[in-house]
Amino acid sequence: MNILVLNCGSSTVKFQIINTSSELIKNDGERCLASGNLEKIGSQEALVTMKATGKEPYKDVRPLSDHREAINVVLNWIDSGESQIEGINSLADINAVGHRVLHGGERFVQSVIVDEDVMKGIDECAVWGPLHNPANLKGIQACRALLGEKVPQVAVFDTDFHHTMAPEAFMYGLPYECYEKHGIRRYGFHGTSHRYITQKFAEVMKKDVSEVNIISLHLGNGCSACAIRNGKCVDTSMGLTPLEGLLMGTRCGDLDASILCFLAEKDGLNFQELNTLINKKSGVLGVSGISSDMRDLENAAVNEGNKRAQLALDMFCMRVKKYVGAYLAEMNGTEAIVFTGGIGQNSNYVRERVCSNMEYLGIVLDKEKNNTLPRSTGGVISAPESKLLVTVLPTNEELMIARDTLRLTEK
Amino acid sequence: MNILVLNCGSSTVKFQIINTSSELIKNDGERCLASGNLEKIGSQEALVTMKATGKEPYKDVRPLSDHREAINVVLNWIDSGESQIEGINSLADINAVGHRVLHGGERFVQSVIVDEDVMKGIDECAVWGPLHNPANLKGIQACRALLGEKVPQVAVFDTDFHHTMAPEAFMYGLPYECYEKHGIRRYGFHGTSHRYITQKFAEVMKKDVSEVNIISLHLGNGCSACAIRNGKCVDTSMGLTPLEGLLMGTRCGDLDASILCFLAEKDGLNFQELNTLINKKSGVLGVSGISSDMRDLENAAVNEGNKRAQLALDMFCMRVKKYVGAYLAEMNGTEAIVFTGGIGQNSNYVRERVCSNMEYLGIVLDKEKNNTLPRSTGGVISAPESKLLVTVLPTNEELMIARDTLRLTEK
Repeated sequence: MNILVLNCGSSTVKFQIINTSSELIKNDGERCLASGNLEKIGSQEALVTMKATGKEPYKDVRPLSDHREAINVVLNWIDSGESQIEGINSLADINAVGHRVLHGGERFVQSVIVDEDVMKGIDECAVWGPLHNPANLKGIQACRALLGEKVPQVAVFDTDFHHTMAPEAFMYGLPYECYEKHGIRRYGFHGTSHRYITQKFAEVMKKDVSEVNIISLHLGNGCSACAIRNGKCVDTSMGLTPLEGLLMGTRCGDLDASILCFLAEKDGLNFQELNTLINKKSGVLGVSGISSDMRDLENAAVNEGNKRAQLALDMFCMRVKKYVGAYLAEMNGTEAIVFTGGIGQNSNYVRERVCSNMEYLGIVLDKEKNNTLPRSTGGVISAPESKLLVTVLPTNEELMIARDTLRLTEK
Repeated sequence: MNILVLNCGSSTVKFQIINTSSELIKNDGERCLASGNLEKIGSQEALVTMKATGKEPYKDVRPLSDHREAINVVLNWIDSGESQIEGINSLADINAVGHRVLHGGERFVQSVIVDEDVMKGIDECAVWGPLHNPANLKGIQACRALLGEKVPQVAVFDTDFHHTMAPEAFMYGLPYECYEKHGIRRYGFHGTSHRYITQKFAEVMKKDVSEVNIISLHLGNGCSACAIRNGKCVDTSMGLTPLEGLLMGTRCGDLDASILCFLAEKDGLNFQELNTLINKKSGVLGVSGISSDMRDLENAAVNEGNKRAQLALDMFCMRVKKYVGAYLAEMNGTEAIVFTGGIGQNSNYVRERVCSNMEYLGIVLDKEKNNTLPRSTGGVISAPESKLLVTVLPTNEELMIARDTLRLTEK
């Protein structure tokens, strides 16, 4: 079965085509046949990069007015002989489409086959995901129009893994009416990644998912920690929106909320401007003034002695440490800490800083293992005497979406 | 020496008169000779309650236009024979005044004798404490005018204990300019209480303050946690303002800051209204819809099965647990957890909930000891096998202010 996995952002479309062959799935036997990236949608100079695995990439700069036009470009490329995708000669070889959808609110607690009602639900959840849900919906509508209704589509929600949180973890200390009237609560994000990590950990440890007890640290451009007990989310650091929690590339994470009132008064910023400030201009970019990319900061701090880059790294690692401690308190211990995401998989520096001076909590890193772990591969990095296992596991959200799509459309 | 301790809020004046006798100080030998409370200042029906220790209280309802008039009422009462304060026959028996001042910014890192320059500094720090610092200043000015310049006054800052935090603990993930331009950073509050607890713990354990390693939990109407290493503050849960961190009586504590933008858009609230919402209408009051008083909530939850009261309690205790875990990570363990403040000293329910299922972190409560500890007295409540000592220590901010005042004015 060939599944087109689509991730539509506000001005981007990312895709993969994944061939799923049921008997191999448990061993990540699926193969990514092609992938691509369309950026600056809505402009005259949208960037198109598409590539069949093992082939030269197709690149173009062209006007793309909307998501439908962008997806049309992808489908035309797939349909043309030029793409040279193994085993795919025309659109008829695409059997299903899986969509990443940002916000499922309280309605969507698992992946679903898309129908009219689901589309209405995704639209209703746009109140909490005003930038992403409309884009996700446009992607679904475009696929429907261009591929026809016979090709099933599945929606996989970034929030759904977190629906098992208890009220004491998901409620905020606001007037209860804020929850009743507006659905203001912690929803959490990166659920597809944390779910994938949970399953992968079970697989690696040869145990059932229901026996997985870990703290999953997804550290990428967006960062979130997730406390997982018996395979289910107990708590997570992102909140109503993906702003809360850890320090991120450009997002501030945890903040005294009254600072917004302070800045509004002192600098005369309105809410849109404040939202931009805390989401796009903050995080390690805002602190360092240099970059939102951890590699740039490590270079600036370690090699050039840049103090603000060092501060951003110190803050980043301290926040992760504190969430690990908080979740160990909430779960009364756990079995393992799992690093994933671009930073989690690749930065031995960050991993070492997070795990240093954590003996009291039962964490002892094997520095040698941590430093020599090949980039983007998984492995154990804790010392034998460490009470908690510390591991690195590469995440794969697209694969998780493809698996859900397979499972739901096979029925 | 007789010290008048003043705590001027936006519409309140609280005072104590404390007799300090140097040789007894180490054993809390000071005596509170009188105390009082003036509320609704600025109204025609201000409430006045003043009481010499062991005597009947003087109560009155009268117009009080401002803090000066309120303090004048206190001083006249002291000066009159009617007050019957032991050893105080007139204002000439008041040797010094100690003021609680909310915000000392980065300028005031310890208590100081008030002079023109200090008053200017307190005024400058009002940018971060717009409700309290002006009131504190009015109290200082009133004492100066009414008692004369010969009576020394000391300012004790709620922020000063926290000045030892490292930048990675006090900086927010905002653009660095927010710190440079507006001094936006974590300052922390309840410093006088956390400092008192640090000294008291040293005294009880017969060790030097520099050897104190604890997590101090000040749980009252306002709540804050403080990580203390070698007698110094390493981190604390309140931030730029006293909003951040734990769930409180009417304050929301930690919050996804983007919720403010969300509420501004959906409900059309402006910043003043949002500030009121998160500071005055939130916390356990907002969640429960019943009360900001933990005793009411315990009663409603335990005796009446009120679900929202139970939720507020669950959230309250979970937040405390998480901060304990976070600070154990930040400090790589510690020696003790200390409960203080009205809730910390009096609610065995909250203490049990916070310490339950914390064995992984080395905390085992002795339920019997916890339940039978007399209200408002200190004592150890952890079990012998507990790796961390868990204790209750009554705080006394007024005494701390009196001690600082004595120390600085004795010189």
